Amino acid sequence: MNGNALNLVNQTLVLPGALPLDGGQSLPRVEVAYETIGTLNADKSNVILLFHALTMDQHVVSTHPRTGKPGWWSKSVGPGKVIDTDRYYVICANVLGGCMGSTGPASLADDGKPWGMRFPVITIRDMVRAQVALLDAMGIAQLHAVIGGSMGGMQALSFAANWPQRTRAVLVIASTARHSAQNIAFHEVGRQAIMADPKWQDGDYPAGKGPDDGLAVARMAAHITYLSEAGLTEKFGRRLQDRVEKTFGFDADFQVESYLRHQGLSFTDRFDANSYLYITRAMDYFDLAEEHGGKLAEAFAGAKARFCLISFDTDWLYPTTESRIIAHALNAAGAPVSFVELSAPFGHDSFLLDVPAQDRVIAGFLNQ
Amino acid sequence: MNGNALNLVNQTLVLPGALPLDGGQSLPRVEVAYETIGTLNADKSNVILLFHALTMDQHVVSTHPRTGKPGWWSKSVGPGKVIDTDRYYVICANVLGGCMGSTGPASLADDGKPWGMRFPVITIRDMVRAQVALLDAMGIAQLHAVIGGSMGGMQALSFAANWPQRTRAVLVIASTARHSAQNIAFHEVGRQAIMADPKWQDGDYPAGKGPDDGLAVARMAAHITYLSEAGLTEKFGRRLQDRVEKTFGFDADFQVESYLRHQGLSFTDRFDANSYLYITRAMDYFDLAEEHGGKLAEAFAGAKARFCLISFDTDWLYPTTESRIIAHALNAAGAPVSFVELSAPFGHDSFLLDVPAQDRVIAGFLNQ
Repeated sequence: MNGNALNLVNQTLVLPGALPLDGGQSLPRVEVAYETIGTLNADKSNVILLFHALTMDQHVVSTHPRTGKPGWWSKSVGPGKVIDTDRYYVICANVLGGCMGSTGPASLADDGKPWGMRFPVITIRDMVRAQVALLDAMGIAQLHAVIGGSMGGMQALSFAANWPQRTRAVLVIASTARHSAQNIAFHEVGRQAIMADPKWQDGDYPAGKGPDDGLAVARMAAHITYLSEAGLTEKFGRRLQDRVEKTFGFDADFQVESYLRHQGLSFTDRFDANSYLYITRAMDYFDLAEEHGGKLAEAFAGAKARFCLISFDTDWLYPTTESRIIAHALNAAGAPVSFVELSAPFGHDSFLLDVPAQDRVIAGFLNQ
Repeated sequence: MNGNALNLVNQTLVLPGALPLDGGQSLPRVEVAYETIGTLNADKSNVILLFHALTMDQHVVSTHPRTGKPGWWSKSVGPGKVIDTDRYYVICANVLGGCMGSTGPASLADDGKPWGMRFPVITIRDMVRAQVALLDAMGIAQLHAVIGGSMGGMQALSFAANWPQRTRAVLVIASTARHSAQNIAFHEVGRQAIMADPKWQDGDYPAGKGPDDGLAVARMAAHITYLSEAGLTEKFGRRLQDRVEKTFGFDADFQVESYLRHQGLSFTDRFDANSYLYITRAMDYFDLAEEHGGKLAEAFAGAKARFCLISFDTDWLYPTTESRIIAHALNAAGAPVSFVELSAPFGHDSFLLDVPAQDRVIAGFLNQ
């Protein structure tokens, strides 16, 4: 036990070999930027690998270097917190294809120029493969648990299906085993918004001069899907922004317009447009059953871990039905699984917000 | 009775005077382009005014001059059809702010140049006011019915609230008495996509050289909201487009991507980007209760008509709860109202598609 020391480290590993990819190519030189919180015990048995969501990164607890904001799950990860770093050693790596230090389309290729759209299309499994290589390099044979929400949940499922010996527990929050037509459609809108921006230049934009307008529109469209209709109504309703009457113009009269515009603009300060294209593509390609002959239960045939699934009743992006499908497949595969739908008003984003019931489920599952 | 003669006429009326607007301005010269189907009877008592939705127009039955496709409700309007033009004289006018002949931002202002963004911001009530002026010019004192779906339903509600003496029946399909925060949010994404397109040029683009890329993205985002998740899954699922394997690229691998791109592109051939800005703004401003002291029942205090409301169980844009709010307000106002939620798999767009139960409700209501 470390008392209340956070023991926070950020570093980058260059993988020792080339990384093979699902698309058939391989990436010759891959860097993985990662954060660790807590202390690795002597037999390396206290490790939790945390997978981040689409627009998150490895800054779980540390202050984000671009926004100056607290880490995205600092509420839940730390000494004495739900994911207790006095007890567990938490690792979170920026995904392959990301833009916060791990190799992605903004990284330099062999010719010294950014990959841009020459970067190979990657999959969720490729993201996990890079992180398994990180575990190998760290000499960690088996994890106490993998945890992920949203796209992080897809990675947790992919890990469980493809590297079943390497974790004792799998926690999947607000996620899905495959992207639906509607999920793909919303991502496609975002990609088209980016590609329609003349500054995109087929992906060959100079650093810091990317298609910010298109990326902001993509973020706005996606952001609506992260919130519930009821949550938006409660938070904004039809309230006006700093005015008492409608202006009969195209300013952001309504608070919800102002909020969305801010979400779009601030996103461009911290995210790379090409990364957004590649990561959304990876999510759209995700279909765990398809990788296993069309039967999701087959994906878990070799599963050795305990599973826990959490969904939220107001999440319309990855609704409870999606978690139920996973639970049924795990049951069919004979894997131990607990599944709970929580009530929370925040829609998909509930997994990042203050939902005490989620804390209880997570702590109970991890500390069994 | 006219036998099976369609008796279809398209014409444009210049309103005799200036049109006052809710924003406080008035429009000096307003043209209203409209289609009539059927024959006006001697005492002008057989008139149905049909209000069109956001991206529709007056071409209810006639072939669309830009797309060459059949009119948007030719399935339901015509001799012997659900809205029987052997019996009724149907009028449908392009809305104020539109781009199919009625005055809108692409029309020429007094200086001989297009209005562009100098066009005043209009409301749903302004749209209705222009159509009431059309009825005045035609000498039609009272309608057999007003009918509208989606934004057409907003116009029907506004008509009933503001000109209660002028119709004997009001039919509102898949609509709402106010735009929710989520509704506004989706429209704002579309507007930002248009305004982010450099070709928009603050609205001063040459005819035919507008912000097509931005408008296509706006249409794509909106189009998702017109369909149900289940409908999208049934229609497309994760099926690939003309290929047997994923390409590991950014082509439209999935059918749903290809479909959405087509929806976006084809829309730009028939719709003006500035019109899209103005009409979506009018919808976002719509809040019938707000116009009447915050109480929706007050809006219907003078209502003389019979009302019928139809919602669809898979419509998540204007879900059944919105129609229920209207029904409660009508009940509170003592107006006769029948309200039915129909089951149909197509989401919001159900009102335009083949739903036999809807036909029965409409015919039953009109022919009482």
